[in-house]
Amino acid sequence: MFFVFDGLDGVGKSTQQTLFTAWLEMQGAKVVSCRDPGSTPLGERLRSILLDKSDLEIAPRSEMLLYMTARAQLVAETIRPALEAGAAVVSDRYLLANIAYQGYGGGVDVDTIRNVGLAATDGVLPDATFLLDLPTKAALGRLNRALDRVESRGIEYFEQVREGFLAEAKKFENVHIIDASRKVEEIQAEIRRIALTVLERRNDA
Amino acid sequence: MFFVFDGLDGVGKSTQQTLFTAWLEMQGAKVVSCRDPGSTPLGERLRSILLDKSDLEIAPRSEMLLYMTARAQLVAETIRPALEAGAAVVSDRYLLANIAYQGYGGGVDVDTIRNVGLAATDGVLPDATFLLDLPTKAALGRLNRALDRVESRGIEYFEQVREGFLAEAKKFENVHIIDASRKVEEIQAEIRRIALTVLERRNDA
Repeated sequence: MFFVFDGLDGVGKSTQQTLFTAWLEMQGAKVVSCRDPGSTPLGERLRSILLDKSDLEIAPRSEMLLYMTARAQLVAETIRPALEAGAAVVSDRYLLANIAYQGYGGGVDVDTIRNVGLAATDGVLPDATFLLDLPTKAALGRLNRALDRVESRGIEYFEQVREGFLAEAKKFENVHIIDASRKVEEIQAEIRRIALTVLERRNDA
Repeated sequence: MFFVFDGLDGVGKSTQQTLFTAWLEMQGAKVVSCRDPGSTPLGERLRSILLDKSDLEIAPRSEMLLYMTARAQLVAETIRPALEAGAAVVSDRYLLANIAYQGYGGGVDVDTIRNVGLAATDGVLPDATFLLDLPTKAALGRLNRALDRVESRGIEYFEQVREGFLAEAKKFENVHIIDASRKVEEIQAEIRRIALTVLERRNDA
């Protein structure tokens, strides 16, 4: 099974991913946890280019393709081998983030991103995506650290990104909108309930 | 007008591109000369990752996407602005090389590469590609320098790449196969003849 945590920075993805991974392991699953972009030597090099606060010019289309390159390597080197070995994979972000950030936020055609995404992932897509949602200002307000290249964009950009996440979530039944304004334990309980439903549906099929 | 020089390393692309650019300028054209990957700060960083002789693992699909990322930036930052300003653009390599190298050589689906290529270039494609062709051994034999990551692959790989170039050239009428075993001046004369025909056809249209 392949699970993804997504949403704006500041919504609490890492905390929920850590708790969820520990829970999966307690159920006896072998779990491979990763972050996209990253988790491979090539991916980490590209991540540093993407998030670097230099004045390197990166067009929205190139930004989208850089993420796709890192993802293609992550699939080839980590995700596909893990799934084939029967492990569960839990990723911090995946394709949906590109659709929200470079599509809705950056103005790149959404169908184009989806098509390039199918090519980059070679069809390896999540069984469930947990979209942690918070009002944009609340999410940004939680980031009490130096902002990276993407995070330092204006509030309007992130409003569009959030709209994109929510609009896409309504289109795909395996994207679950999670109200991230609640207590950590409540959020985690909902994520586990959804995961159990997905697992049962998979076992029935 | 947008012209591309392509073919295996060692076929004499740089020499012909230099002579051709000088000739275009003598005709009064403003010419922007570039290399793909490269010619932008992002592109040069990605080029160094691609050609670096480190043991960095890069899957064929990621390699293809890295080239596409560099190309998207080259189009956005250099090629499209130059064409819109009325300049001629001459590039050392472009999309055809990905189809030959990662497609025919690396086994990535050719239609996938073409589709990602349309997304990366946003439809900015050459008016004419000069495919300099030599028997594989002759081309490789001319490389009297340390080989980069791609160049150090085996002869069978380059045989497939050459087959790919020739097969694709037969499919598209704006890809011109140039016999590169002749004298530099003869090759250049043929390239100029073809360019004049392309320019006339464009002016008639």
